[in-house]
Amino acid sequence: MSSFTVRTDLALEDRERIGDQGGEIHGVILEEEDKEETGIHISRVKIETKNGAKIMGKPIGTYITLEAPALAEQDENYHREVSLELARQLWSVVPEPEKEQSVMIVGLGNRDVTADALGPHVADNLFVNRHVILEYGKAAYNKERMHMISCIVPGVMARTGMESAEIVRGVVQETRPDFLVVVDALAARSTRRLNRTIQVSTSGIYPGSGVGNHRNALTKESLGVPVIAIGVPTVVDAATIVGDALEQMEKGKDMRLVAPREHPQAVSELNNMYVTSKDIDETIKRLSYTISEGINLALSMEKLE
Amino acid sequence: MSSFTVRTDLALEDRERIGDQGGEIHGVILEEEDKEETGIHISRVKIETKNGAKIMGKPIGTYITLEAPALAEQDENYHREVSLELARQLWSVVPEPEKEQSVMIVGLGNRDVTADALGPHVADNLFVNRHVILEYGKAAYNKERMHMISCIVPGVMARTGMESAEIVRGVVQETRPDFLVVVDALAARSTRRLNRTIQVSTSGIYPGSGVGNHRNALTKESLGVPVIAIGVPTVVDAATIVGDALEQMEKGKDMRLVAPREHPQAVSELNNMYVTSKDIDETIKRLSYTISEGINLALSMEKLE
Amino acid sequence: MSSFTVRTDLALEDRERIGDQGGEIHGVILEEEDKEETGIHISRVKIETKNGAKIMGKPIGTYITLEAPALAEQDENYHREVSLELARQLWSVVPEPEKEQSVMIVGLGNRDVTADALGPHVADNLFVNRHVILEYGKAAYNKERMHMISCIVPGVMARTGMESAEIVRGVVQETRPDFLVVVDALAARSTRRLNRTIQVSTSGIYPGSGVGNHRNALTKESLGVPVIAIGVPTVVDAATIVGDALEQMEKGKDMRLVAPREHPQAVSELNNMYVTSKDIDETIKRLSYTISEGINLALSMEKLE
Amino acid sequence: MSSFTVRTDLALEDRERIGDQGGEIHGVILEEEDKEETGIHISRVKIETKNGAKIMGKPIGTYITLEAPALAEQDENYHREVSLELARQLWSVVPEPEKEQSVMIVGLGNRDVTADALGPHVADNLFVNRHVILEYGKAAYNKERMHMISCIVPGVMARTGMESAEIVRGVVQETRPDFLVVVDALAARSTRRLNRTIQVSTSGIYPGSGVGNHRNALTKESLGVPVIAIGVPTVVDAATIVGDALEQMEKGKDMRLVAPREHPQAVSELNNMYVTSKDIDETIKRLSYTISEGINLALSMEKLE
Repeated sequence: MSSFTVRTDLALEDRERIGDQGGEIHGVILEEEDKEETGIHISRVKIETKNGAKIMGKPIGTYITLEAPALAEQDENYHREVSLELARQLWSVVPEPEKEQSVMIVGLGNRDVTADALGPHVADNLFVNRHVILEYGKAAYNKERMHMISCIVPGVMARTGMESAEIVRGVVQETRPDFLVVVDALAARSTRRLNRTIQVSTSGIYPGSGVGNHRNALTKESLGVPVIAIGVPTVVDAATIVGDALEQMEKGKDMRLVAPREHPQAVSELNNMYVTSKDIDETIKRLSYTISEGINLALSMEKLE
Repeated sequence: MSSFTVRTDLALEDRERIGDQGGEIHGVILEEEDKEETGIHISRVKIETKNGAKIMGKPIGTYITLEAPALAEQDENYHREVSLELARQLWSVVPEPEKEQSVMIVGLGNRDVTADALGPHVADNLFVNRHVILEYGKAAYNKERMHMISCIVPGVMARTGMESAEIVRGVVQETRPDFLVVVDALAARSTRRLNRTIQVSTSGIYPGSGVGNHRNALTKESLGVPVIAIGVPTVVDAATIVGDALEQMEKGKDMRLVAPREHPQAVSELNNMYVTSKDIDETIKRLSYTISEGINLALSMEKLE
Repeated sequence: MSSFTVRTDLALEDRERIGDQGGEIHGVILEEEDKEETGIHISRVKIETKNGAKIMGKPIGTYITLEAPALAEQDENYHREVSLELARQLWSVVPEPEKEQSVMIVGLGNRDVTADALGPHVADNLFVNRHVILEYGKAAYNKERMHMISCIVPGVMARTGMESAEIVRGVVQETRPDFLVVVDALAARSTRRLNRTIQVSTSGIYPGSGVGNHRNALTKESLGVPVIAIGVPTVVDAATIVGDALEQMEKGKDMRLVAPREHPQAVSELNNMYVTSKDIDETIKRLSYTISEGINLALSMEKLE
Repeated sequence: MSSFTVRTDLALEDRERIGDQGGEIHGVILEEEDKEETGIHISRVKIETKNGAKIMGKPIGTYITLEAPALAEQDENYHREVSLELARQLWSVVPEPEKEQSVMIVGLGNRDVTADALGPHVADNLFVNRHVILEYGKAAYNKERMHMISCIVPGVMARTGMESAEIVRGVVQETRPDFLVVVDALAARSTRRLNRTIQVSTSGIYPGSGVGNHRNALTKESLGVPVIAIGVPTVVDAATIVGDALEQMEKGKDMRLVAPREHPQAVSELNNMYVTSKDIDETIKRLSYTISEGINLALSMEKLE
């Protein structure tokens, strides 16, 4: 076993890591499904008990993972399929989806750091109607039933001097949405999942998540309303990648390391670094469009095909 | 007299318009000063009574105007002088400037519309320290006395579905600053003042101000804390410019218009349009830097030269 | 008749202005067509002789105008229809459209000035394949016939120290495209046409066109290859709008002006200014997408529905 | 010895790697200097022979490295010192620095990928005067002697379909500058040097340099004029970092690896990835300003203090 901390925001990766060491986990349910037409693999990890949460290192809640290898490619039609599947999965965790509600979408992250810009970019393409409905009513859209949708991009602490959580809490208290959808770029453990995985979870965003740093949680407990989180892993911690490579080597290669086992010096220098893909700009552009479409569809109150 | 509405966010222009019709205005004081070294002209309009406010069409308060013709030019040293003068004028309206306080700066406007991007651009270059002080104390800066500074860019209603005022009010209630400094692009009446005038006022931002549209006020009444507004006129309403040209013509040219006097059709089409200068990108870049430096200086708690 | 110069980049507006003064123009042909399904109005002005060019104040060539009032609105399906119609019209002026060719698309304008950012934004969404075909052949796309497409955004003179025409000429000589498609924001005479008109012309870009200033032409004469220009009027010169309003007034109102007739002083101040709409950011975003889709379709070598 | 390829764009790192294996290298001279006042460490690697070039894996030329640990910090005064030192070093490699010349500065890289955006950001703050001098002469600046300065940002191949080298060569042939200054983000071998090292070299940019990929060289041979390159390492190849960590481990830990020695699988996945620092946005903002100031000073024809 490696002594490197392997950080991941994906519950599925936690499940796999633990599963490696043998079978079932009490309080954690894993369901899997393959969508034949689209090749999308859906995993649903339900952490149901405190014990399960402790073992997994993640709060109680449902974590849905859409894995779609072709997501990393440039196929507009395919992205539409993923948007639709994301809409269905979102719909499955929206509280009282048939009821008209007011929803606030939060785009976390840093617009100026490409790998961390997913949230702000998703925000750019959302359908937002709260201001129109409050002024002119749903009649402005010729509709009888609509969710009322607002959106905020809180920005980064170095620029605002405030936690994202402080800004969001203030705006939530002022505008009283029924629930939140929070979008953020995530860190994965494995480069294999980068940019081709979408996680939808019901437990919000907690400290240590995301590419940036959040000291404060964005959860039902801290905000008073349910928080659905949507994330895509766009980076791997640099220390994780080195640790991982070492671990793989040890496993596969009959390698003996003489104790005391210590982090190579290089690793400590890596703490403030991450690994990302060279085409991250095109990736973020495509993925953010796919996700904003998925959210728009899910909140449209129209029947999904 | 013209029947066109001439909209201006500059109290000085209101004062001039009214002054044209004869001398003193009850409840409105005008002081003027020329800074010889820098060529900056300072006007201080104090609206002191309800009557004065009614005549001027602006709330009670102090409106300081810095006019600096060279501001439209590209002279770095000169801009430093303007920053310093702005700092002095800001200082003169800060409540209890010698006391340590927490200040929130608000960058109003639309980053994607050049002429309306002043607020967001000013926000990019501000010194912000609230998060550091809350985590590590003033010791992190080797200082004993510091204002605690935060900043927010609320974005535009079409993207957020919320009034800027709603977002700001929420964040103010959550983070409790002692006062606000709000930066916004303004509309002037005359193209002559565009990009070379800075207005500092103590009465906040009220509906109809700025280049964008604010339905709700950002004032002490609506937010519970004093609001200092800093603005630069970057546009003239298109209808104003046409009306103005017509009016000048009538005055200067012995021109008789036969009643009924109506707006030319073109003018009604102009309602959603504004006039701006062709080099507005360079202008906004320079001015926003000058203003952020001015704010940084004013809030540094250091003696201004 | 007004003494104000009324500048327009739209041949159709020149045609209308002259037409006002009576009927046919020698050497200038005007054809018009209404697309019933889409409500798009197509005008085709052909300037065929030097005399026609002189009267019109535009070079010999074909100027196609698509007018689509709904273009200023936010209807994704409608924009797809306009893209398709634009593709058809482009196709009609492409030299030897059935032959495989290499095409360079040029995005003129200033990304930092919203009303002038059409060209750069169109460039962001183009399908570009030259580098892939040169490295891997058309096989990389599983196609037998393809145009080879490249794209350049030359930027603005204040930043480059060079004319757009110099940059484009150098790159054309180095990479030898068969023809150019140049996209630029235009100035119209009338606010009525802003943001809802697309002009396709075969005569390139000449000094005085566009929102920015080009001293040098981008034409077949100056570059050695055919130049198709695509433009959308996004601004009206400020002086034009004032002049226009005055003119309308004179016409409609039994107004007598005593000589000597001079420009009102305000107008001279307007020379460096333009009028644009308040929602220009959303407009540019939508229009640039519509146009890049149109170009992508026209150059796809696939049969247009 | 490790079998991982360790890629670096810094000649100094090549020199160190080879130096490790024992002393002098024929045809390669290393001079070092410490600037006491500023703490800047200057290394000057001169590759003088073909043999030296072969051993070093870099073309013949001079490679000056400025190492300034404090460069990674936010100290405006310090950055001014670095700008001045950079100007001096640039000056030392400018051909005929006392003669008036025309200079083109090239900002390589991808504005949309933070770690690769150094070149475009430097371009944003350069003093450019070619268009003014050609139109109005040096009199416009009240100067008798000036370099004539232009600048181009060629963009990335995925957007242009062209090599940066093609675009630059075309523009060079059209506008005939006397020499080029090319700015690019680099890859280092060691995270220790990231963001605190500036390399100035006389050998241009060759394939494999930079964060992005250039297949074609930007050198005197390919362009016909001298090319001075300025670079800052902002990333480390992900494979390099893993290889490096493994190597360090082997060295320090009495670790035996049983043959056949192969890359761990993870490493092959890393080929398209790089490591960068979490605050890369602030870093690029600061560094690009420091470098553009250095270039502006070096080309000002004024005596450097």
